[in-house]
Amino acid sequence: MVAEADPVSERVAVASVRRLGQGKARARQDLVAVEAPLAITVRREDRQESRSLGILMRTPGDDEDLVRGLLYAEGLIRQPGDVTGVAVQAETADVTLAAHVDVDGLAWERATMATSACGLCGRLSIDRLDTLGNRLPAADAPAVEAAVVSGLPAALRQSQPVFAETGGLHAAGLFDAAGRLHVSREDVGRHCAVDKVIGAAFRAGWLPASESLLVVSGRVAFEIVQKAAMAGVPIVIAVGAPSSLAVDAARATGQTLIGFTRRGRFNVYTGYQRLRG
Amino acid sequence: MVAEADPVSERVAVASVRRLGQGKARARQDLVAVEAPLAITVRREDRQESRSLGILMRTPGDDEDLVRGLLYAEGLIRQPGDVTGVAVQAETADVTLAAHVDVDGLAWERATMATSACGLCGRLSIDRLDTLGNRLPAADAPAVEAAVVSGLPAALRQSQPVFAETGGLHAAGLFDAAGRLHVSREDVGRHCAVDKVIGAAFRAGWLPASESLLVVSGRVAFEIVQKAAMAGVPIVIAVGAPSSLAVDAARATGQTLIGFTRRGRFNVYTGYQRLRG
Repeated sequence: MVAEADPVSERVAVASVRRLGQGKARARQDLVAVEAPLAITVRREDRQESRSLGILMRTPGDDEDLVRGLLYAEGLIRQPGDVTGVAVQAETADVTLAAHVDVDGLAWERATMATSACGLCGRLSIDRLDTLGNRLPAADAPAVEAAVVSGLPAALRQSQPVFAETGGLHAAGLFDAAGRLHVSREDVGRHCAVDKVIGAAFRAGWLPASESLLVVSGRVAFEIVQKAAMAGVPIVIAVGAPSSLAVDAARATGQTLIGFTRRGRFNVYTGYQRLRG
Repeated sequence: MVAEADPVSERVAVASVRRLGQGKARARQDLVAVEAPLAITVRREDRQESRSLGILMRTPGDDEDLVRGLLYAEGLIRQPGDVTGVAVQAETADVTLAAHVDVDGLAWERATMATSACGLCGRLSIDRLDTLGNRLPAADAPAVEAAVVSGLPAALRQSQPVFAETGGLHAAGLFDAAGRLHVSREDVGRHCAVDKVIGAAFRAGWLPASESLLVVSGRVAFEIVQKAAMAGVPIVIAVGAPSSLAVDAARATGQTLIGFTRRGRFNVYTGYQRLRG
């Protein structure tokens, strides 16, 4: 793993619990995943006014990556130099953009609208996704072995210290086609976990990640496929089920979409030509 | 079950799949859960202008209940007569409110802001949740048997026809303290499933549902606890893990919060005094 996540201690809290079952009740202390709001504002360095991008619920830690990943996935920033600063307090993140960033055009509107549905809106129509496909490599690259795909959920799980404690977090990770993990993050919000991974890759200058596989611990909906496409990721692998719109979006961009990756088996919904073996 | 959901056929789509594993590849047809955008606008019947509440990604079906439940949980509407119409097209829902509804005050702002974070924001501070507790019954009512709690996830699952087909949907259901199901709904979005249930209960005149239990198929975050509190529901039961803020919120309102309800066992995080047996 190339990039280290922030310390686990931010991500867990202690809760007093009574465990009931089979006629017994036991008091004990459990760990729960931390959920806390983050209000995001954005200001361009040469301007006075700042704009609110809304409030996200997320697990604290790696908040700078979260914010960068969110802005990148929304198309508001393209290069690491587009962001001159991210000031994170407990529940606020104030982003400063470089003076050369166009904040008046479509990208800004889309970001506002995107966050206005908290990453869950359909602002990028399937038509627009066609153009996103341009960020991807050739239609059959990279090639990945079926045996590698089968092993990815376990590799992601091993990188996820808090889930084992709480059962309450989603994970996302970027792997290469040989199954090596580059970066993983976990969060109560599935989109936030993906944003943190994309933000870390963005900060490291790895985007577009056109040789990478994005692995997610849960289900995969439209939004995850769209974020992966924005980051140039050609292969998306989920432990859980895809939605109909996730399948449609992956087909439109030319991505490979894999779901139900469990117990040595998986389903390939789109982009089967990237599978080997 | 008192209220019927819209037909299952809206909730599933056919996808061509290649199933790989153990050296074999088989082509087959699978069902996936439908995900599609719904743009919501609200207009008061005596005014010209309408306002956008943003775009949700949801599973089609029961969209009127979804919209009513969302507006109710945000505090914008209080009585069935507050809504004079909901016009649902494929991907739009246009709500008309009665002329007596206050759309200029805090409630409207909160609704806009709420939807602007797609139900995931922390707009209701923990302090405000204290006042929500007023909708709940006495601190020890209703009483529920531990054996009833253990059986609720299976009862909810039985009411969930599409999950069995797709593995891709969250479910939510309102039960009474004897374990009888009143209404259940499923959706790709966990908050949408809860909104549909609350909307159906609202339309039937059952709110506040101060004798009811809300059961959800997955994890439980702040937002679910808050929606349940708005609906007057004193007991929230999740199959999965709670977040830290869900526990804090339930403690603030006086709700009972139960998680990890699996294999005859469960954890009680708050409101233990409502458990019997």
